[in-house]
Formats: sequence, C-alpha cells, structure tokens
Amino acid sequence: MTTTPLMQSRLPRRHFLARCATCMAAGFVPSILFARQPPPPPAAPGALDLVDDLVAANRILAREGVVDAYGHVSARHTRATNRFLLSRSVAPELVTAADVMEYDLEGHAVSPAGRSSYLERFIHSEIYKARSDVNAIVHCHTPSIIPFGASTVRLQPIYLMSSFIAKGVPVFEIRDAGGMTDMLVSDGRLGRALAQVLADKPAALMRGHGAVVVGQTIPTVVGRSIYLDVNARLQAEAIALEGKVTYLDSEEARRWDAANGTYDRAWELWKRKAIPK
Amino acid sequence: MTTTPLMQSRLPRRHFLARCATCMAAGFVPSILFARQPPPPPAAPGALDLVDDLVAANRILAREGVVDAYGHVSARHTRATNRFLLSRSVAPELVTAADVMEYDLEGHAVSPAGRSSYLERFIHSEIYKARSDVNAIVHCHTPSIIPFGASTVRLQPIYLMSSFIAKGVPVFEIRDAGGMTDMLVSDGRLGRALAQVLADKPAALMRGHGAVVVGQTIPTVVGRSIYLDVNARLQAEAIALEGKVTYLDSEEARRWDAANGTYDRAWELWKRKAIPK
Amino acid sequence: MTTTPLMQSRLPRRHFLARCATCMAAGFVPSILFARQPPPPPAAPGALDLVDDLVAANRILAREGVVDAYGHVSARHTRATNRFLLSRSVAPELVTAADVMEYDLEGHAVSPAGRSSYLERFIHSEIYKARSDVNAIVHCHTPSIIPFGASTVRLQPIYLMSSFIAKGVPVFEIRDAGGMTDMLVSDGRLGRALAQVLADKPAALMRGHGAVVVGQTIPTVVGRSIYLDVNARLQAEAIALEGKVTYLDSEEARRWDAANGTYDRAWELWKRKAIPK
Amino acid sequence: MTTTPLMQSRLPRRHFLARCATCMAAGFVPSILFARQPPPPPAAPGALDLVDDLVAANRILAREGVVDAYGHVSARHTRATNRFLLSRSVAPELVTAADVMEYDLEGHAVSPAGRSSYLERFIHSEIYKARSDVNAIVHCHTPSIIPFGASTVRLQPIYLMSSFIAKGVPVFEIRDAGGMTDMLVSDGRLGRALAQVLADKPAALMRGHGAVVVGQTIPTVVGRSIYLDVNARLQAEAIALEGKVTYLDSEEARRWDAANGTYDRAWELWKRKAIPK
Repeated sequence: MTTTPLMQSRLPRRHFLARCATCMAAGFVPSILFARQPPPPPAAPGALDLVDDLVAANRILAREGVVDAYGHVSARHTRATNRFLLSRSVAPELVTAADVMEYDLEGHAVSPAGRSSYLERFIHSEIYKARSDVNAIVHCHTPSIIPFGASTVRLQPIYLMSSFIAKGVPVFEIRDAGGMTDMLVSDGRLGRALAQVLADKPAALMRGHGAVVVGQTIPTVVGRSIYLDVNARLQAEAIALEGKVTYLDSEEARRWDAANGTYDRAWELWKRKAIPK
Repeated sequence: MTTTPLMQSRLPRRHFLARCATCMAAGFVPSILFARQPPPPPAAPGALDLVDDLVAANRILAREGVVDAYGHVSARHTRATNRFLLSRSVAPELVTAADVMEYDLEGHAVSPAGRSSYLERFIHSEIYKARSDVNAIVHCHTPSIIPFGASTVRLQPIYLMSSFIAKGVPVFEIRDAGGMTDMLVSDGRLGRALAQVLADKPAALMRGHGAVVVGQTIPTVVGRSIYLDVNARLQAEAIALEGKVTYLDSEEARRWDAANGTYDRAWELWKRKAIPK
Repeated sequence: MTTTPLMQSRLPRRHFLARCATCMAAGFVPSILFARQPPPPPAAPGALDLVDDLVAANRILAREGVVDAYGHVSARHTRATNRFLLSRSVAPELVTAADVMEYDLEGHAVSPAGRSSYLERFIHSEIYKARSDVNAIVHCHTPSIIPFGASTVRLQPIYLMSSFIAKGVPVFEIRDAGGMTDMLVSDGRLGRALAQVLADKPAALMRGHGAVVVGQTIPTVVGRSIYLDVNARLQAEAIALEGKVTYLDSEEARRWDAANGTYDRAWELWKRKAIPK
Repeated sequence: MTTTPLMQSRLPRRHFLARCATCMAAGFVPSILFARQPPPPPAAPGALDLVDDLVAANRILAREGVVDAYGHVSARHTRATNRFLLSRSVAPELVTAADVMEYDLEGHAVSPAGRSSYLERFIHSEIYKARSDVNAIVHCHTPSIIPFGASTVRLQPIYLMSSFIAKGVPVFEIRDAGGMTDMLVSDGRLGRALAQVLADKPAALMRGHGAVVVGQTIPTVVGRSIYLDVNARLQAEAIALEGKVTYLDSEEARRWDAANGTYDRAWELWKRKAIPK
C-alpha cells in the first residue's frame, strides 16, 4: 500500500487518517489500493471528497425527484481514469459512503465484498470508455422526460437554466440495437449502442425507460439532470399554450454555458438541503 | 389451538410469543385459530409477517398518494387460502395491526368483535374466489386514473416501470352490471361482475370511481398501484405533446416483468419512509 | 346570563366550566348570552363543539390547499339559527378559538371587541338567510376552480367523491349584479345576488374570483370543497385526453349522496392531520 | 458619523443600539453612514426594518417556489433613494442580514468587504433609476412563467389575486437589445433596455430567462411575484379547457388594486411560515 502520494497532498495527515478510518468503518474499502492487477495509480485524497460528493448527489437527485427507488449516479475516479465509483444496488436515497464501490471500464466491481451491483452499470462503463471528457453520469427515470422519450416531439432548450439541451438530446431506441429486450442496458453491447447514440451530447433519452445525463463534474451532471426535468415540464406547457414558441438559440446557449453552466451556487444549496449538518 | 406448526418454524419461541402478545394486545385476534367451521389450517408465522406488510402497504399507499381517506388493500391468508386479511373501515393512513380483520370468501368478517367493515369488501372476496394466482388486492380512487376510467382513451404502458399495463387494463362500467347504482361494489353480485371484467388482467379501472389492482404479493400490488398512477400522468402528458407516441411492446413488457416486475428495491424504500424505525 | 340550558345538557358542569374558561380566556366571548335585542336563545354546548370544528375546518382547508391566505369558513349557530360563527379577518391557517366571532344575518358582528371582520362576510349572511338547509359555508379561491369560473366549460361530476356536482354548480358573474366592481361581495346587495345564483345548489363558482360551497354540516362543506378542487383538476385532465368522457349520471350521484355524501371517515383523518394531538 | 437623525426617531436609544450591534455583528455594515461622496442622507431606522423584511422576502420567495437557487429581491433604501439593498451572490433561501449589501444606482456595491455581487444587479439599478415609484424589485426564473415568456400567448389576469396583470406584462426580448448574448442582464446598457420595455408596468417577462416584478413595497412585490406564478398556471389550464375565457376587465382590476392590492394579510402568513419564531 503506497501512501506517499496521499501524504504529499495538502490534506493534513491527521485529517486524512480520520477520514480513512471513517470510510473504512463505514464499509468503504478503498479497494483501488489493494487491487491486484492491473495495479491502478494510487488513490488521491480527491477520491475521498468524490465519495462525499457522490453520496450527496444520490441524496440530492432523490430529494429533487430526479430518481425514485431506481436510477443511479457515478463518478470517474480522480486519478485512476479507467475506474469509476458507483453505489451497490440500493435506492439512491439510502446511499451512504459504505455503499460506494469501484468498477473498471468493463463494468466489473473491483472489490465487491458480497455487495450486489446495479444491472445497468454498463451504461456508465461504456460511456466512460467512449467519452474522456465525461467524469460523472446520471441514469434516471424522471417522470417528466418519459413522454419526450416516447414521443416524436424533441426536447428543446426553453430557458437559460437548461441551455445545454441546445447541444442536442438524442433518443436511444433500444429496438434498433437489440430488437425485443427487457428494456435494460444490462451488458456491454447495449451500453456501447447507447454511448454511440449519445455521441458527444450532454444527455440522451431512452425510449420507454428514462435518460442518461453526462458532465465534467458531479455538480454539473446533477444540475443538468434537475433542469432537464424542469425543461421537459415547461416545454410541454409551452406547447399546450398553442402559440409560437421561441427556444434558446444555440449561440445563446453556447455563451451561457461558457460563462455559467456549472450550477455551483445551486449545488451548495441542494447539498445543504439534502444533507443537513 | 394447535401451536405445533408455529413451533416448527424457524422463529424462536420467545420471539413468537412476544409477537402474539403484541398482536393480541393490539386487538388483532388471530381468529382463524378459533373459527368453528370449516376449520381452516392453523395460522403460519407467515400470517403475522403478513399483518406487518399489510399495515406497511396501507401507510405506503397513503404516503404515495394512491389512496386518500378512502381505498383499501388486502392480502390472502398465507395458509388458509379461502381467507383474506383486510382492515376494519378506517382511513388507510391510520391502519394499525389492531385494525386488521380476517374475512372469508363471501366477505364475512370471521371475528368482527364490534369492528365495522368496508362496504366494498366484496371487491376483494370475489377476486380471491376467481383468481387463485392473486394474493394481494388494492382498491383505490387515485386521482390520475379517474380521467382514464371516464374516457374512451385506454391506458397504455409508457415505460418499463408500468410494463404490467401491457397485459391490458379493462374498464368496469357498473351500469352494465347494475344499471343505476350508488356506484359502490357493495355486494357479491357486483363483485363477481367486476372480477369478470378484470378476468386475468393485473388491474381494471372502474368508471366514475377508481381502480382495482391485483398481484401475487403485497409488494407487487403496491408497486403496480404506484406506477399505474405514474403511467396515467405520463401518458396524458405524452398525448398532450401531440406527436406520435410509442408504447412498450407487449414482448418488451413480458420480458421486463419476468425479470424485474416485483418492485423489491422500491418496497424497501417505501416501507422505510412510510414506517420510520 | 342564563346558564340553565347548558346545565341541562349531558356535559358535566366541571367540564363545561373548564371549556368556558378556556374559550373566554382565549377571547371567545359567548356574546349571544349578553346581546341585548332581539334576545336569541341561549347558546347550547353544541356551540362550543362548533367552535372546535370551525377551527379544525380552517386548518384543514389551508392544509389541503383549498384556501391560502384568503378565504373563510363559517357555521350557523347550533341553536340561534339567525346567528353564525366566523373568524375575525385573519388567514385561515392561523385561526384559533379566540378569533371566532358571532354575526347576525345582516353581517354585523355581535361583539367585535375591536376585532376586524372579513370584507366578504355578506356571502355568509345572505346565504344563511336564504337557505335554511345550510349550516356551513366555505368561500375560497382554490386555484383549480378559477379556470372553470372563467371558462364557458361547466363543471361535471367525474367520480363518486364529487357526486354533489351533479346537482349543478352555477357561475356567478358579478357584472350581471353590479357592473364594474372591485370583484368583492362586500355588501348585502351583492350577497343576495350571489345567493340567488346559488339557489338550491351545493356550490357556485364566482367568475374571476373563486367559489362558495355550502352544506348541512362542517364536515360536509369541507369535504365538498376538497373534492370540488379534485374534480376540477380531473375534469380538465379528462378533457385534455380528447376522448369521449362519461360523467356521473344524476341518478348515480343522487344514490351515492343519499348513502355516503357526508365524508365522515375523511373528516376524522383530515382533522387528525391538521390538528395533531 | 451623524447619529442625530436616528436619535430623533421614535425608536428607543437602547433598542436602536442593540439592533445596530446585531446588524454589525452579522456583517451588515450600514455603509451609507461611512460613504465618502456624494454624502447620502443618514440611514433611518427604517433601513434596519427593511433588512428584516428583505431577508423575509428572500425566504418567502424560496418557500413559495418563486425562486430556486437563482433569482434575487431588492429594496430601495428608505431615505437614501439613490441607494438600494440586495444580498451578496447567494441562493435566496440562505440569505441572512449579514448578506445584505448596499448598492448605488450604477450597480456598484458601496462597501463590498470582499463579498461577491449578483451578475444581474443592473436589473435593479436601472429600474430604480427609471422608476421613482418603485421601492422593491424581484428577479426570478419561476417555472410557470417561462412558457409565457417563450410563447406568443400573453399573460392576462384570470382572477382578482393577480389583477395587477391587467396593467400589462410586456416581454423583454434580449435579442432586440443585444443580439446574441449569454442571456444575462449583466451591464447597465441591458438593464436600461429592460427598464424601457418594463416602462410603467408592474412586471415584465424575459424570453428564455424569467421575469422582473416591481412594486411600491416589499410585501407588494412579493405578493405580485407569487400570484404572477399562480396566474400563469391557471391561465394555461383555462386555455387547455378550450372554452371561451373571460379575463378581468381593466376597470375591475383597477378597482380591486386600489382597495386591496397590497397583500398585507398574506404577507403576515408567508412571513410566519418562512421565518418561524
């Protein structure tokens, strides 16, 4: 076990040890340090903050109605970019640090220790493989987006908070990839098909199922998931008014994204409400 | 009173006695043990777990908005398959173990002990009689399903969580069975008419009234009731978008149901939120 | 002060005195006992229960979203049928026994004691004058009913819980009675015009304003107000489905009302949730 | 530092000093007393009440769903009419007295003390400059109003609570003023363009963004923001019914506004719920 890189960080040793103890006591085994082969780079303290943020993301998404008992959120490992963190198979609202597991890009749990995995972890593994710019992924069944996934009407960005939609939100039709299935992206082949439809976009709807949302950081992917939901509801309402609707121009969206697309102020609020101190 | 089968179970004697005492103190008389004729098989410990689950189901359905002050949920007795458990006439949100009563398949309370019965208990008795595969039944007035019960537009499965709808959700028109009524299924004749319309389906809407949902287990019938509600809302939204809507294919639904249709992960979450420890 | 009728009641003297003390301490002066002319019959203990129920009704209507900061609920005095009880001018959610005042049928507060009155108390006074069958009245601005008050589309009973709508829910157009006004029913003349439009119906919508709902008892008028709201939402949803909609037949409604129209089971639940013990 | 005017007020010296201490301890520096040039009139105790009300307004708007993590509310300084109070850049739900800063009418913070400012403070500065009748301003992204900002369908007053809409709610199209932008009113030029579109109206929608609402007092602007939201939802529902809709006549609206447009009763309730004592 190489602790040197950790010691080099700015995190005081005492603080680090306390956090390790907490994580281990809570059942979060930093498996990456013990994994036999191939030996990944040692975990950075960032990975511990990442676990905190990932737990927060689970709670926030549940509190904001993006996920119910189903759906999941993952984050790419800070240093071991061929690894990602994802909870064991449990409702997002109940996720604690002890539930967070490490996976490789084939969707194998590194140290399962008897914990069961989400059937659809291949959504995450295949997108991390295909998209080096993506560090966080949400899979959800948010009610408001289901009608758009089933309809020929496409999502359009109705206001600045959901401007990322201007980049395009394709619909994944699992029949194209797998014919008649049980609708689940439960193997690498279907995961790759989904990643191909997603391409370089920030999100894709999944017909009859839900959506996948990606981002560079956990706060970004959480913000996108929340405002994807709001946009779906508001676009439906705008259509029902039966007037002409003006959506964001892609140039307006690009400029807003460049300056403001990280949802930082919202992240602080969501976290405070989902995890009271 | 034959206690032998109970003693043979894996439940320690001390635990069993404590639970019996609790149930009896709370007013839940395991009447099946005392009933005169025909003598049913003795209650299994399963029946006690069933009471816990039935109380949980009542609270969950209230918390999730499936029922308000009206509506009820029952479960077939674990061993005495010609008996079922149903609360006395009280709002589901207030049901405790003490309110759970035992009924025969004619809708007679075995040991009422002065407690009043739901007027529409015949919904339950007649469906248990007609459907040996059904072990749990919900009757509800969930708002979202009322428009579909009153409309010529039929429910269709819009996503995997409500895939059971692909088997068909017929509409019970009480006028066909009883002409002008007070709308209530308050006797065996109307209960039989409803069971005939339900046939082998997982649910039926009742025009101007609500729905009946059935399943093999309590978690399944609770999950179906919750996602019947979600589906009704989402299908209405999809229709309002005025594009073409693609619903689940019956083969997709069949495959998902076979692998995942039990809502187990959700049941744990719902129970934890409805009955805090 | 004649206490004899009160003493004749089944309420033990000690209990009665304690409640009087509570009411008086809380500022509820049983003014009817002191009023000079015409001397009304002495208050029955029923009036004290009525205050409890009226406070509960205010809290329930706020909790269920029927009223926000505006709206009010009154009850006819149990024995002095030419008097009614109504809170001073305060948001329903904040009403306590101390806020309850007594009014005559001209809308005059019997013992205001410096407390201000709702501007629209004439809604109540004129309906009590015109409808001897009415013992409780709600005036509300419930959001869901506003579109129906403004539209040429009429409310119809979509399910058994709102069957009373089958008797008819006329729309009061204040322009017919008063031309251009500030929209408020703030005098006896406008109150009489509203009572005439209401006629013998259970409720009337008020264009650009809200509704008035009446009933024989407080639980009935509260239940009708709550399910008027639900019906408005569900009817709008049924219309949006664009199929043919079957509403309750007036004979079905009449039969249901006769047997079940009192919302007693719901009242117990609503009260328990609005006023925790 | 001139304290004389403050001492002349009706506020007892002891009370005033206590409140100053509280405010200063909390980080609210009454900067107006220290500002060098041009020396504004000394702050009145009213400014301290104003801070309380401004904090309450932030919490109320968050609680009522008018703002989420974004949006802001300001108030013109009671005596220094060329100054206004606005929180530092933080989610409205989290605002405390310590976050309230003072700005001049060019949008410069008088004593930032390291605190960051909302990018869109120019919405406030330019409207206060143009509208001497306005003492409070809300900027929000309330979901229900977004469809109306994007649609050719205009807001109309559907009931008395939102009668102010009868004065007109224009839509600000930022493309007219700035061509392709990042959608934010982040400088004086865009602020002036918005103020020009607002003209003498009580509110303006901002296409693809949200709205600005103005009023003579904080309770008025909060009430208008809340009922702008309700009106948007109800007007959309009325349109969906597909009957003919009758909106408030401008004369009805004018009369209601004159007598009742201050939302005082609601303000007391909102405050009590948003800031429990």
